[in-house]
Amino acid sequence: MKQRRSVLSVFTLTLAAGLGAALLAGLGGGTTEAGSEAEFTGAGRVVIRDASMVLTMDPSLGEGPLGALADADVVLEGAKIKQVGKDLDAGSAKVVDGRGKIVLPGFVDLHNHLWQSLIRGCAADKELIGWLGKCVIPLYRAPVTDADAYAGTKLAAADVVSTGITTVTDWSHAFNTDFAKGGLRALGESKLRFLYSYNGTTDPALQNEIRRVKREVIDPNPLARLQIGTHPSTGNFPSVEASEKLARELGVSLNVHLLESKADLTAGQMDALRRANALHPGLVANHVIQATDADLDELAAAGVSVAHNPLSNMRLASGVIRLPEMKKRSMKVGLGLDGGTNDTSDMFNVMRAAVGLQRAIATDPAVYPTTADVLRMATLGGAEALGMDKEIGSLTPGKRADLQLVDAQAVNFAPKVDWVNQLVFNTQPANVSWVFVDGRALKREGRVVGIDTAKVVADAQAAADRIKKLLPQ
Amino acid sequence: MKQRRSVLSVFTLTLAAGLGAALLAGLGGGTTEAGSEAEFTGAGRVVIRDASMVLTMDPSLGEGPLGALADADVVLEGAKIKQVGKDLDAGSAKVVDGRGKIVLPGFVDLHNHLWQSLIRGCAADKELIGWLGKCVIPLYRAPVTDADAYAGTKLAAADVVSTGITTVTDWSHAFNTDFAKGGLRALGESKLRFLYSYNGTTDPALQNEIRRVKREVIDPNPLARLQIGTHPSTGNFPSVEASEKLARELGVSLNVHLLESKADLTAGQMDALRRANALHPGLVANHVIQATDADLDELAAAGVSVAHNPLSNMRLASGVIRLPEMKKRSMKVGLGLDGGTNDTSDMFNVMRAAVGLQRAIATDPAVYPTTADVLRMATLGGAEALGMDKEIGSLTPGKRADLQLVDAQAVNFAPKVDWVNQLVFNTQPANVSWVFVDGRALKREGRVVGIDTAKVVADAQAAADRIKKLLPQ
Repeated sequence: MKQRRSVLSVFTLTLAAGLGAALLAGLGGGTTEAGSEAEFTGAGRVVIRDASMVLTMDPSLGEGPLGALADADVVLEGAKIKQVGKDLDAGSAKVVDGRGKIVLPGFVDLHNHLWQSLIRGCAADKELIGWLGKCVIPLYRAPVTDADAYAGTKLAAADVVSTGITTVTDWSHAFNTDFAKGGLRALGESKLRFLYSYNGTTDPALQNEIRRVKREVIDPNPLARLQIGTHPSTGNFPSVEASEKLARELGVSLNVHLLESKADLTAGQMDALRRANALHPGLVANHVIQATDADLDELAAAGVSVAHNPLSNMRLASGVIRLPEMKKRSMKVGLGLDGGTNDTSDMFNVMRAAVGLQRAIATDPAVYPTTADVLRMATLGGAEALGMDKEIGSLTPGKRADLQLVDAQAVNFAPKVDWVNQLVFNTQPANVSWVFVDGRALKREGRVVGIDTAKVVADAQAAADRIKKLLPQ
Repeated sequence: MKQRRSVLSVFTLTLAAGLGAALLAGLGGGTTEAGSEAEFTGAGRVVIRDASMVLTMDPSLGEGPLGALADADVVLEGAKIKQVGKDLDAGSAKVVDGRGKIVLPGFVDLHNHLWQSLIRGCAADKELIGWLGKCVIPLYRAPVTDADAYAGTKLAAADVVSTGITTVTDWSHAFNTDFAKGGLRALGESKLRFLYSYNGTTDPALQNEIRRVKREVIDPNPLARLQIGTHPSTGNFPSVEASEKLARELGVSLNVHLLESKADLTAGQMDALRRANALHPGLVANHVIQATDADLDELAAAGVSVAHNPLSNMRLASGVIRLPEMKKRSMKVGLGLDGGTNDTSDMFNVMRAAVGLQRAIATDPAVYPTTADVLRMATLGGAEALGMDKEIGSLTPGKRADLQLVDAQAVNFAPKVDWVNQLVFNTQPANVSWVFVDGRALKREGRVVGIDTAKVVADAQAAADRIKKLLPQ
């Protein structure tokens, strides 16, 4: 049976391709039509039929470390994955044609600042401290608004979806409470799974506002989680300590920038975290480039997770993360876009850079990570780093239906030679044809669903123009 | 006038964007309609009207080192650029709406192997020598055909156009004369400007075939140029010498792989070139990563040009090119995709990597190249490296009409903050909306023109399947 279906599928595809794209749509017949007309809202049953490859990221479901299956179906039931396998009976499910497509879990973006879509291209000639001084710090005492945060986050959310991301961590600078509200409103509307990292404080009134946000905005939304963000340093110690205490009180993670640039080496970052008792499992540390062996030993022993953001690290001239040393210590590492210093949302490019940077430095193609390693890092690895791997990160039945379909028939991707390598080295965001979060389609047949692109872009331009006036020229 | 138009243009754009994309098309009115229906074949007159920014790369035409103009027109007359400026009278020219778009010269891809689209993803865990052994060398004694070369080159050409490239250098392995014919046929059909680097030889019959190809295929095609390709080493010296002699006889350049990987250090590459009298202006040397100071001094003094292929260098773990040292020596450096070890065609990603690799190594954001430097490198720099800067590489009136339009209103690109930086850090190939070569549109409103994608992909798959059988498993 396996052999027959497989041969048939290749035959149909080749024949159809030979006869041209129009005919291919015709051969798709009723199923493609049904797929185009039906709503995909996360209710009812959906089957992705005859996917040319499914990378489940669950070795118990398929071959190799990525749990690969050829010519298989994926059935979604409401917000969850119901079944993955061949020739599944999906009853009256809505059908998505998987032929010529690769199905894999949605990417977990472990580190981003969504509002920073408003400052794309800002001060690209500066390292971290210079860039912060030109593009971010001045906004802390400035009249940035709910509308600004909403506009920037709305734009970035559409961008994030387009590259196959289903979970995004938004480390917001939360310049004021209105700004936080605007960002959270846009995140809620995006229907992405998200973690909102609210910048911590020693101010009791702001702490109460964070408690209220958790209670009234985050907890009622099954897609939302809170984190407390802080920037560890000796000078900022009171805020670090207060943030860690609030995180413990609320039962959420702390999310910090750590050892990103050389400038961080004199800030006492590790010491501040140590004194605040913040080094423990669940802490997410972003960048961690300038770590010594002793730092890595301590972070690994404490169970701290790391977000690697190679494109941002390259733009800011921060240096190269020590991924092989982290792997040796079995540290949990995921990938992040770090929008604003990246600047675009392209997780495939992030994966390429994560592999390529290590190779360029080591002049050794066997250095960690391989292409399979980095695909795992971008999906299940990110989920593990967030302690969410029981819910997301692989296509294991019972997990949330967060997944993407990549078009393997595009001119920049075809032909099929080694699809795992091609996912890392060939793919562009435009090749992501479908994205599902909790069973709801956020991208469909190549288009992000439910946004008025022209309006989102115009609103972002207006907000960017306001913000530009608040920055030093 | 300047001020009025500019304000009006921003107002119209913002208003239209606020009212949604459908209305924007409506406001475009007759001009957009006319643009959609007309043919753009390189005959007659075309005006790109009201481009939000034109980066001419010619400082005499606009502001700064990139010769930038805001809200300007570009008039093409037949195959050439006629005029660049504000409020130009274009008579009854066909109109392309430039609002919200950035116009810049098409990219010059200084190094590629188009047939290698058939081996995308092949042996991505190997360095240069291992990869060649797995994916290329076995094909020299194998029955690869005209159809194989045609299919791979056809696919790669469509991919190359999609990322804004207008001139491509195809260093073909030319496994046999039929294979060369297939590649040349596809290149001719592509309507790209191309340099075909025919692999040189000591065999008189093959030398005659190369002479015939120049006379009968290259010379009659105004878009085509010949080069002689060779791989310098002590062991291959007779072929290097014969190649240099043939290049001189035909008045064309020699194109070599040089000091790419550590393995090249023992091959006597510089010595082979020196003995063959091949170190002179017009020699294009690809990669040049492992060069010592003395090598760079010698190459610079000889006027040798360099093709930098950062994504390939990262994938193959070859190391990091010494761009700042080359800049100090005023060497001519352009950028290349090096398809097959890249693997996809994304010149924006190549530019990001060229900037980011230097920064990650130097931990200094002021290191050469800046974003403006790398944009010049990808256009006029490539043209200079090929000795073609009198014909292409900038939008100077009288040069060939090779240019691209980038959509600055896409969700991954907008809002406008610093467009030079955003071209390097934000752009994806899908943002390239129009590509013109010699005045002919090869990409139009986001779609590559005149290819049956499904057929090209199916043919490439068939060829890839044939080739896979010839490679060691």
